[in-house]
Amino acid sequence: MSALEQVLSHVDNHLEESIERLFDLVRIESISTDPAYKAECLKAAQWLERELKGLQFDASVRPTPGHPMVVAHTPDQSEGPHVLFYGHYDVQPVDPLELWDEPPFEPYISEQPDGSKQLKGRGTSDDKGQLLTFVEACRAWRAVTGKLPLNASILFEGEEETGSPSLDAFLAANRDELRADLALVCDTTMWDRDTPAITVQLRGMMKENLVIKAASRDLHSGAYGSSARNPIHVLSRILADLRDDKGRVQIPGFYDGVEELSPEMKQQWDGLGFDGAAYLKEVGLSIPAGEEGYNVLEQLTARPTCEVNGIWGGYTGQGSKTVIPAEANAKLTFRLVGTQDPAKIRAAFRTFVEARLPADCSVEYESVGGEFGPLSVDTDMPFMQKVKQALSDEWQKEAALIGSGGSIPITTEFRRVLEMETLLVGFALDDDRIHSPNEKYDLKSFHKGIRSWVRIIEALSR
Amino acid sequence: MSALEQVLSHVDNHLEESIERLFDLVRIESISTDPAYKAECLKAAQWLERELKGLQFDASVRPTPGHPMVVAHTPDQSEGPHVLFYGHYDVQPVDPLELWDEPPFEPYISEQPDGSKQLKGRGTSDDKGQLLTFVEACRAWRAVTGKLPLNASILFEGEEETGSPSLDAFLAANRDELRADLALVCDTTMWDRDTPAITVQLRGMMKENLVIKAASRDLHSGAYGSSARNPIHVLSRILADLRDDKGRVQIPGFYDGVEELSPEMKQQWDGLGFDGAAYLKEVGLSIPAGEEGYNVLEQLTARPTCEVNGIWGGYTGQGSKTVIPAEANAKLTFRLVGTQDPAKIRAAFRTFVEARLPADCSVEYESVGGEFGPLSVDTDMPFMQKVKQALSDEWQKEAALIGSGGSIPITTEFRRVLEMETLLVGFALDDDRIHSPNEKYDLKSFHKGIRSWVRIIEALSR
Repeated sequence: MSALEQVLSHVDNHLEESIERLFDLVRIESISTDPAYKAECLKAAQWLERELKGLQFDASVRPTPGHPMVVAHTPDQSEGPHVLFYGHYDVQPVDPLELWDEPPFEPYISEQPDGSKQLKGRGTSDDKGQLLTFVEACRAWRAVTGKLPLNASILFEGEEETGSPSLDAFLAANRDELRADLALVCDTTMWDRDTPAITVQLRGMMKENLVIKAASRDLHSGAYGSSARNPIHVLSRILADLRDDKGRVQIPGFYDGVEELSPEMKQQWDGLGFDGAAYLKEVGLSIPAGEEGYNVLEQLTARPTCEVNGIWGGYTGQGSKTVIPAEANAKLTFRLVGTQDPAKIRAAFRTFVEARLPADCSVEYESVGGEFGPLSVDTDMPFMQKVKQALSDEWQKEAALIGSGGSIPITTEFRRVLEMETLLVGFALDDDRIHSPNEKYDLKSFHKGIRSWVRIIEALSR
Repeated sequence: MSALEQVLSHVDNHLEESIERLFDLVRIESISTDPAYKAECLKAAQWLERELKGLQFDASVRPTPGHPMVVAHTPDQSEGPHVLFYGHYDVQPVDPLELWDEPPFEPYISEQPDGSKQLKGRGTSDDKGQLLTFVEACRAWRAVTGKLPLNASILFEGEEETGSPSLDAFLAANRDELRADLALVCDTTMWDRDTPAITVQLRGMMKENLVIKAASRDLHSGAYGSSARNPIHVLSRILADLRDDKGRVQIPGFYDGVEELSPEMKQQWDGLGFDGAAYLKEVGLSIPAGEEGYNVLEQLTARPTCEVNGIWGGYTGQGSKTVIPAEANAKLTFRLVGTQDPAKIRAAFRTFVEARLPADCSVEYESVGGEFGPLSVDTDMPFMQKVKQALSDEWQKEAALIGSGGSIPITTEFRRVLEMETLLVGFALDDDRIHSPNEKYDLKSFHKGIRSWVRIIEALSR
């Protein structure tokens, strides 16, 4: 039996312990966006540091102005290349809590009608389960051969879900320590349940929170109704105007830098047989809401977005209250493609808002960070073929090169600050309900994900 | 000294005790719209029962399916007419709590720079302070003369702020007990700080809470952005469409039954010298948002409204969350005038909403009650002149007959169920911040309000 086969076999034989470790990590309530969970984020970082030290990594928790980083390096001097593996230990908030079948931080295995198993709980997929596929692969290599066949560094972040505000400065300050021949990121999906994928396109991100202010205080709708400007109405008009009936964003200049898909990529994607109608049907929808003239897959990955993620104003309790509120709030995110520039989009959005603002209203913006451009990975990069082959071997199906509608800022930063290319390999599925109640990670994703990294590590070491 | 002068003098000499009683009542947190305060509502009813019994009223707390009523009658058989006095002991919610200078249920006297005094706390004006002006007037009459010079019944309600859902059935079931020659209601404003008023026009009310539902669960905006319908966007479009840029409501049929102000009333109102610009400026606004072609006073009292009182959906916590929510909610109220029919307005609104609903979205409505038509009081009614004269005597300025933008359902019900006319006499001021943080009632309103009722009781007894 080859070393590779022995390591794969070790993974199979110790899967239950791997699951237990994942559940330990999931139990830590590391919600990065809410300051109330700051101590839990630190706890998750310390848990990872401890685990990595147990694998003889030179590991440490590194403070940042926000949540800490975990950095680790193999002490061995292997002859192979040097890779930097990235994942994030922070998770999304869990509201609305009442929609969870079980408490979000009490993970469990759920057996499905078809006999398959799911690991359930907040972060099982995004990204605790995914980052552990790499850690468990390292564990198996070390258990069987005593060391990794290449030089590995690890960077675990605790602010990915809040737009990685501390990342840029941290990379710049630790440039020499973190630079490697290649970055590997496990935070993306497979193409489908059976087809592994390398994500070669990612959308950028611009976030904007705003509050529209009208009267100097809340007003009684009997005493002021009609005459006093209602900021909810002003905000509604702004939001309604953002997209037309054909799904096209109406902010002037918004589409500057948006490129049409190349004929080759469009052909490859069309060949993947994506069923947009089924994709929407699975979540109870039937009418694509994006730009007319683009199919669902293109809307989801190759086109920019403008979404309202939250809105509130006035009375939101039980019953009713005859109030005209003094202000109304919204949170928006924009996913960017091609060469769209987040700073220009922000400026254009603000101009759009202010053009719709009555003279006696005002608007304030809250910066929540998380601004970064879109990314296209060079598909001709040296390591691409090795990783693609290793994935294809494990899943017995050719790995696809795909675009993702999501946004992973780290890839842009790795290129910009560390001048290093990134390969995005993940095992999540579209039905993992990440960011939603009842998040899950298929046991198969976890198991074969670990095995995939065992193979990729071996392939890259050659 | 006449009996009237003695009673007025008693009011002056015992004002501090009256204030203490008001503060006792304000300390009871009788928020009717929130079920968490049910026990507090009962406590307020019991407090009033106790006070009225102390004044030899035959008083009792009467259960309803919601919060209880307090009913009381003078046991004496005076020769004068029989009046029914109405007020409500329930108050509006207090959020946003952080905008209160002091806790809302810890009332206090605030001395102003000009030396005048304000009674501060939730309900000081709406309606605990106002209803006590009548109770304290009865107290003074009884203290000085041993009885009231007329027959008085009292009805205190605990559901006015939620649209009086139990009132209709209660009036019908207690018709004989409650019917009187005239109803008196103290829940309205003066024309201004110096000019007393009888309110002869009130707007009706229709309330509608709705939720727009799109996907079957919250979605990740990276995985679904653009293609999945965003219910916040759908809701925003509906709300934005409700009024055009000239402030006119766009619901087909909405203006059926809206009548133009009579030339006589318009002339009287124009003569009152209302300064719309100053009225808006006081709350930080400068541009009337209502229908073009009507001045601010007309917009506020003679024209119907369509207001969003609350909106929420998606993530509203700190930071950001890249979610496309499954649903978005809004609370609306419509103030009605002329012969607008609440049921027809509701149906027209729903048709308007559903015409803007994508085929894969749905809408659900929550009934919160509080539906009643507009009211115009007959200005030739027999008691009008006596009450007007009594008010003019107390304030040394001729009382105005005015319209109110607010809505007091009881007046419609008194006419419909008890076939009884109502005179609306109140001492609140437009800057009382009712329904808002830092609600207050001028000590002058409270003091001269009590004195006004002393005079009205005497005038009606003649």
